[in-house]
Amino acid sequence: MSELTSALSTRNEFVHRHIGPRDEDIKLMLKELGFENLEEMARHVVPQNIRLQKPLSIGDGLAENELLQKLKNKVSQNKVYKSLIGMGYAGTLTPSPILRNVFENPNWYTAYTPYQPEISQGRLEAILNFQTMVADLTGMQICNASLLDEGTASAEAMQMSYALHKKGNANKFIASNNLHPHILEVLKTRATPLGIEMLVEDVSKFQFDHSVFAVMVSYPGTDGKVENLKSLAEKVHQAGALVIASTDLLALTLIQPPGEWGADIVVGNTQRFGVPFGFGGPHAAYLATQDAHKRLLPGRLVGVSVDSQGNKALRLALQTREQHIRREKATSNICTAQVLLANMASFYAVYHGPQGLKKMAERVHSMARLAAQGLKGMGFKLKSESYFDTIAVDTDRAENIVDEALDLDINLRLINKKTVSFTLDETCTIETVESILQAFNHGEFVNLKAEGLKTEDYSFDPDLKRKSQYLTHPTFNLYHSETELMRYIQRLQSKDVTLTQSMIPLGSCTMKLNSATELMPVSWPEISQLHPFAPLDQAVGLLHMIDDLEKKLCDITGFSAVSLQPNSGAQGEYAGLLVIREYHKSKNQSHRNICLIPSSAHGTNPASAIMVGMQVVVTKCDENGNVDVKDLKEKAIEHSQNLAALMVTYPSTHGVFEEAITEICDIIHEHGGQVYMDGANMNALVGICKPGEFGPDVSHMNLHKTFAIPHGGGGPGVGPIGVKSHLAPFLPKHSLVPEMGSKTGITAITSAPWGSASILPISWAYISMMGAEGLKKATLVSILSANYIAKKLEPHYPILYKGKEGLVAHECILDLRPLKKSSEIDVTDVAKRLMDYGFHAPTMSFPVAGTLMVEPTESESKPELDRFIEAMISIRQEIHEVENGKFPKENNVLKNSPHTAEMLLKDEWKHSYSRTKAAFPLAWVKKNKYFPSVARVDNAYGDRNIVCSCPPLDDYQS
Amino acid sequence: MSELTSALSTRNEFVHRHIGPRDEDIKLMLKELGFENLEEMARHVVPQNIRLQKPLSIGDGLAENELLQKLKNKVSQNKVYKSLIGMGYAGTLTPSPILRNVFENPNWYTAYTPYQPEISQGRLEAILNFQTMVADLTGMQICNASLLDEGTASAEAMQMSYALHKKGNANKFIASNNLHPHILEVLKTRATPLGIEMLVEDVSKFQFDHSVFAVMVSYPGTDGKVENLKSLAEKVHQAGALVIASTDLLALTLIQPPGEWGADIVVGNTQRFGVPFGFGGPHAAYLATQDAHKRLLPGRLVGVSVDSQGNKALRLALQTREQHIRREKATSNICTAQVLLANMASFYAVYHGPQGLKKMAERVHSMARLAAQGLKGMGFKLKSESYFDTIAVDTDRAENIVDEALDLDINLRLINKKTVSFTLDETCTIETVESILQAFNHGEFVNLKAEGLKTEDYSFDPDLKRKSQYLTHPTFNLYHSETELMRYIQRLQSKDVTLTQSMIPLGSCTMKLNSATELMPVSWPEISQLHPFAPLDQAVGLLHMIDDLEKKLCDITGFSAVSLQPNSGAQGEYAGLLVIREYHKSKNQSHRNICLIPSSAHGTNPASAIMVGMQVVVTKCDENGNVDVKDLKEKAIEHSQNLAALMVTYPSTHGVFEEAITEICDIIHEHGGQVYMDGANMNALVGICKPGEFGPDVSHMNLHKTFAIPHGGGGPGVGPIGVKSHLAPFLPKHSLVPEMGSKTGITAITSAPWGSASILPISWAYISMMGAEGLKKATLVSILSANYIAKKLEPHYPILYKGKEGLVAHECILDLRPLKKSSEIDVTDVAKRLMDYGFHAPTMSFPVAGTLMVEPTESESKPELDRFIEAMISIRQEIHEVENGKFPKENNVLKNSPHTAEMLLKDEWKHSYSRTKAAFPLAWVKKNKYFPSVARVDNAYGDRNIVCSCPPLDDYQS
Repeated sequence: MSELTSALSTRNEFVHRHIGPRDEDIKLMLKELGFENLEEMARHVVPQNIRLQKPLSIGDGLAENELLQKLKNKVSQNKVYKSLIGMGYAGTLTPSPILRNVFENPNWYTAYTPYQPEISQGRLEAILNFQTMVADLTGMQICNASLLDEGTASAEAMQMSYALHKKGNANKFIASNNLHPHILEVLKTRATPLGIEMLVEDVSKFQFDHSVFAVMVSYPGTDGKVENLKSLAEKVHQAGALVIASTDLLALTLIQPPGEWGADIVVGNTQRFGVPFGFGGPHAAYLATQDAHKRLLPGRLVGVSVDSQGNKALRLALQTREQHIRREKATSNICTAQVLLANMASFYAVYHGPQGLKKMAERVHSMARLAAQGLKGMGFKLKSESYFDTIAVDTDRAENIVDEALDLDINLRLINKKTVSFTLDETCTIETVESILQAFNHGEFVNLKAEGLKTEDYSFDPDLKRKSQYLTHPTFNLYHSETELMRYIQRLQSKDVTLTQSMIPLGSCTMKLNSATELMPVSWPEISQLHPFAPLDQAVGLLHMIDDLEKKLCDITGFSAVSLQPNSGAQGEYAGLLVIREYHKSKNQSHRNICLIPSSAHGTNPASAIMVGMQVVVTKCDENGNVDVKDLKEKAIEHSQNLAALMVTYPSTHGVFEEAITEICDIIHEHGGQVYMDGANMNALVGICKPGEFGPDVSHMNLHKTFAIPHGGGGPGVGPIGVKSHLAPFLPKHSLVPEMGSKTGITAITSAPWGSASILPISWAYISMMGAEGLKKATLVSILSANYIAKKLEPHYPILYKGKEGLVAHECILDLRPLKKSSEIDVTDVAKRLMDYGFHAPTMSFPVAGTLMVEPTESESKPELDRFIEAMISIRQEIHEVENGKFPKENNVLKNSPHTAEMLLKDEWKHSYSRTKAAFPLAWVKKNKYFPSVARVDNAYGDRNIVCSCPPLDDYQS
Repeated sequence: MSELTSALSTRNEFVHRHIGPRDEDIKLMLKELGFENLEEMARHVVPQNIRLQKPLSIGDGLAENELLQKLKNKVSQNKVYKSLIGMGYAGTLTPSPILRNVFENPNWYTAYTPYQPEISQGRLEAILNFQTMVADLTGMQICNASLLDEGTASAEAMQMSYALHKKGNANKFIASNNLHPHILEVLKTRATPLGIEMLVEDVSKFQFDHSVFAVMVSYPGTDGKVENLKSLAEKVHQAGALVIASTDLLALTLIQPPGEWGADIVVGNTQRFGVPFGFGGPHAAYLATQDAHKRLLPGRLVGVSVDSQGNKALRLALQTREQHIRREKATSNICTAQVLLANMASFYAVYHGPQGLKKMAERVHSMARLAAQGLKGMGFKLKSESYFDTIAVDTDRAENIVDEALDLDINLRLINKKTVSFTLDETCTIETVESILQAFNHGEFVNLKAEGLKTEDYSFDPDLKRKSQYLTHPTFNLYHSETELMRYIQRLQSKDVTLTQSMIPLGSCTMKLNSATELMPVSWPEISQLHPFAPLDQAVGLLHMIDDLEKKLCDITGFSAVSLQPNSGAQGEYAGLLVIREYHKSKNQSHRNICLIPSSAHGTNPASAIMVGMQVVVTKCDENGNVDVKDLKEKAIEHSQNLAALMVTYPSTHGVFEEAITEICDIIHEHGGQVYMDGANMNALVGICKPGEFGPDVSHMNLHKTFAIPHGGGGPGVGPIGVKSHLAPFLPKHSLVPEMGSKTGITAITSAPWGSASILPISWAYISMMGAEGLKKATLVSILSANYIAKKLEPHYPILYKGKEGLVAHECILDLRPLKKSSEIDVTDVAKRLMDYGFHAPTMSFPVAGTLMVEPTESESKPELDRFIEAMISIRQEIHEVENGKFPKENNVLKNSPHTAEMLLKDEWKHSYSRTKAAFPLAWVKKNKYFPSVARVDNAYGDRNIVCSCPPLDDYQS
């Protein structure tokens, strides 16, 4: 309308909140690099042939309140019914102190994966509690630090048992027909490309022989049945196979744990321990096993070790992490975990304690018995009289009963036209049971009869009653009042360095702002309380947002279609390669199985290729770190007949916009291959180039890197894939939700149709509030900041790789290898010394050993960048002092770092440097001093003495 | 129904979360005291004649989820309209990072008043920012650290100017008739008992003479008018009177501040700086003045001083606090502030910065101009052409227009049958303006015309345009990105000790758990977005809860009626005494003006008595700290004709259940007086005796002590009063909400009818979740814990006062006076040394100088009590080491405490004790070491060199 009305707009205001450097700062930084403006810089950094010619179609960024109102309006269309559908998802009450102090607290959700243990003891302890909790409840010896969901955990268990089973060529995997259908689907998806023959059977009747490597059972079954599986396990073991049990932790407080009747591997999820449905995710799944199998355990594992002072200290054990993933030899590509949700579940167990959980389980079981008694009184026949929380009923009126329940705002499960089931949970009350009976009774109220029922009478075989103790560790018995729990949570968080403290300049991990507004909707009941298999009309508002997010991601990436099902980056890689595989199959080119991967790739790339049955051929990099196009071409020609795909990261893992990218893609296409782009570095692309337009056929995006989902201490993540139109028909579908995806799509790769649906609003909000201009500016500022750091640090540390104009993309690699020779100081010493300055280290030794990769992101302010630069320069000065002999090579501020308060305050001081130098190396460190809670952790000791659950009581008391 | 169905109940589960000691712990603690059970203990502690004979009627405690659901259902009946009613309340957007990181963060809301500055530097800095913000924006030199609301701030300004004005017997106070009506009402309430003659006038026409001590103007007026008041101020000054201005901070970013045209005192509120309406409160008001008047400034004041190391350190200046209130000589009883809300407002200014606020003000003003132009185009006449955000319109259709707006979900203000007004705010958009015009246009849409309007053209006189700068301090210019703001907030919070760290054993302040569930509803829009003067049918759900809360408080206290209007304990005292005054008046006993107050009373008691025009007569205490009944009787007889009231704290300020309480009440009643009970110690009574049944006629309760509202670092508070039936007709009413209270009631004492309505759900939730049994158990456990501490510490520190059976109530007094003689160690040294152990000190030197008063509350676990006991015993040992000469009297761990990390890490160590002894006096201190951010603060220095706003830039940079 007029100048005045435009002044009334609050559009694009969020951009100014998200981006760290002020416009004045941006000018100063550009000046440092010799540029007039961001556009000019972009021309020198980004190859001209791939640059976007017109802006994104996303439009202006919404103001924060506008965004919240818009989303609220959308999701108000959802219907929040009580979902008793079960299938591994149960209603739960997140204890308010956990909601507020963990889930909604940036000290937890902005944390990075605890690769630097000295500044991560808080979340490491919370994860150790998770491992202990699962191991205790399942009766197993060791549990990993969470997996993505029950489906993928089951698939990991299958793969693990396949790897464990070394007796010749057994390749049959028997899955119980009483597993949840989506679990069976994910298993099937995973089995096929690996050459595993999967049979779905009534396991009680199956005849095992030595062609079988593992049997997976459900305990309780998808229909609720609880049965004694001991003799079955014996039979399986006699046949030389392994037993995998899928189970429910709450049930295990009452029934005998699988570890006690012979299971070798136990999987399940911890959703009902305080993590809402979230329309499918995220929540933490787990895989527990016997100690003997620990070296094949997929995913992360927290273990107990000691620090340089001999104190107990935790750290990730056995280095099962992406940078150390065993590439072509990998048996899993798992990388992201569900740390934030695992921590919620572990605090939930800490808060309720063993008695509280048992009491809850008895309540749930009692309600189930009350319902069972009522149903039988009405003449219904139960599928099984032995159950925990789920009751299946045979009836001719199945659909009718489900409809009656809908009228009462309750979702039951329609197993088939003749079977209805329901699963009770801690949110249920007597009124819930009454409503269920009413639904079975043509909508007429039924009087409950509880006479004769006693709490301690369980429905199942007394032999199955759990006799062993669990959660006996003090941690599960000390913090049952809210004050104590709150202080425990706060005490743990105070040990960790997160984004609330200082920048986390991790190359390839894009630790940008996770704004409070973006996160708020995740706790809204209209989103968090939706069961993934509830009728879709109950989720209409959320689905509308999901659809819009897909469209926006297509606009940003230039792809034709997007699937949001993959719930991690590695899952995205896996899904993308499966899509390529399916595409070749559709062209009758199933023989194409060669996957070219440059030597600089992320370790997950080859691991994912292996998982889809491809054969990895590594191609070389040149001395500048770029793909060696000549070598690539040779290999493409050599494998032309069988070339399936190239996996390439762009900008490269070396942080450079390679000029040859279009040429590279052309070569692959010429030889019949498809190009998979690893989207780890997408933060350098958004708004300035679209992968869908410059060559790649498919790419994953890490919503937890580029699109503002917080890292949560190592998860959740979301790794959607975008594809060109020819691949769109093959995007994942889900058998339980036929409305999703197309018939030609690959079968489900995760448990839930839209993966971790409840956190998708974070990315949607981020994109919607940034708008087209904001997204582009963010990318340019992230590139500017990386180049600013590179320029400032280059006189002190050589920058390893740069583009042809001497510029980097959104990250830069500092080469510390020469220092090792001159001073014996290595990257680890610098990383640990940074902690004394209050910083989290950059990425260590990836992609090149002996280097540090720095990615500042657009969210860090210039003062923060300058503080980091100053710290790095000061550390270089400290290294000089070792080089020139002022301080000895074995005893100096770097080798002894990080310095705990206890070390610094020792009455006797044995170092040639001063306490002040150690603790307050720069003036500003004093103003916000962080003291690590442990000194340098001894990894080797921990790996020699693996302890992966809470240490025993006497350790604790000492 | 059966044993099974009762096992299904989750009732009373919250009791177990709220109360710290587990049942096993309670047994151990009882055993320590020689009791079998809590009942037996109660018989020995509480005088038999006052003990409750039957349980409270509240019933079972609701489970947390049940409570939230119930309240959600209730408040869903509210209608959240856009309220453009104005009158000092404007719509605002709480920035999400402030909502999450301050308002919903226990590190901020559980903090205590910063009396111990060394462990409170974070919130002291936030409050200093508040003071700086207000001083800058108003153009004044000094501002206090917040008042309760605009009405009481205005009343404080009137009282202050009355005290400042010493020229003879001027007693006329002229209030502009353009002040908000509720401000005028509160002023009137306050003026009358003080003997001030208040006139409401058109101040531009009034003839001033020397009988006037102050004039209060409104800038802008309640009708929105912005006028040049400079010549008026000159006229007032010539008459020897003071000018008080009521103003709006957002307006002051555009218009000349009152300090520049001669105002002596400026008041207002900061609600629109990020604190939602909340149906009237809480939010922070302020009073700013010239430096010359600082010693009469009511309320708290944060000032800059230095610590023992010469570093800058903040602390409360001039000791304007309850323990130091000047009792009978007081000019104000103000005590509780609105710290949490003041901090939110100051972070809001920090986040937006001067440019952001100015831009926002210009947006708001532009929308007002757009509306004005539209209205004039439609032929309406504005009351004034000079306005900021509020426009009043003369029209015959006033009521009709307001109704049309209601149909559009908008509340306008009906000033009278011929005048409508509306106030725009930052939440408004062009659509809001369109809706307003539509309401004025019989519901028909009106096309906006913005032609010719420019942002920089203001409606008011160009002379009134602000030319001076504001918020120039770096603090308001560095933290405009969310990451920077979040880190600033977190950096500040990390300096403070709150309930998230350890117990805060403050006598009389009852720092119990503030549970997350209790606090959640406060952020719900159905509660937070209600304007206090919106039609009551929009608040029907909240009113229902308020009504229920009143009933529950009646049940708990035994009174007949309760008023929730008083928004602090001191306001409760004031209201209670006003009610007594009105009662005597109704009996034609207006001459009764003597108020008896025992010498042990809280300082607020005499101050409140003075404010209602009573004369204080102090009565003695005996050597046991009890009221000297003989002396009381003599004074009652002596003043029998004029006896108005007794103010008595029960249990006594000495922490003892005095046996004589009923006798004391009888004596007062015999002589025609009323008994006012100070409810500070109500936590020792709930569920075991009812004040309404054992003598008192009126009592206030501190919902922020006894009923779980958090302290917020020194506010908000709520101080409702309960009265016996004969006083019920005199409870406060409110002229703008005639539905509330009765006609015979006293006029409003606060701005809003239900005071701080939005935090009432906290107490309602607490009571509802604890239930009758839970509340009683909480009281008994709080008494048990106090006696447990007393028993354990008595061998080390004498317990000063005990009841006749040697027991204390819910708090105990440790007598440290003998130590001063033997070691020169005093209470301050012990308090500061406790910080090195990670504890907040108990109450110092109240009620007896040289003592510490400890109140553990029921929420502290036994391990936490034991840690505190151990720390106190360890400190006693350290005192022994001074007594026996091991360490010198002037240089020891106590005198030098607290020890900052910087002190402890000095390269040269000059003390005879070790660093380890100083930092880690007990083994467990290492596990959760807290380092104070400053060393012992020099109060005297600060009071000699008063600086009460952010220090200048060069200080900042150094």
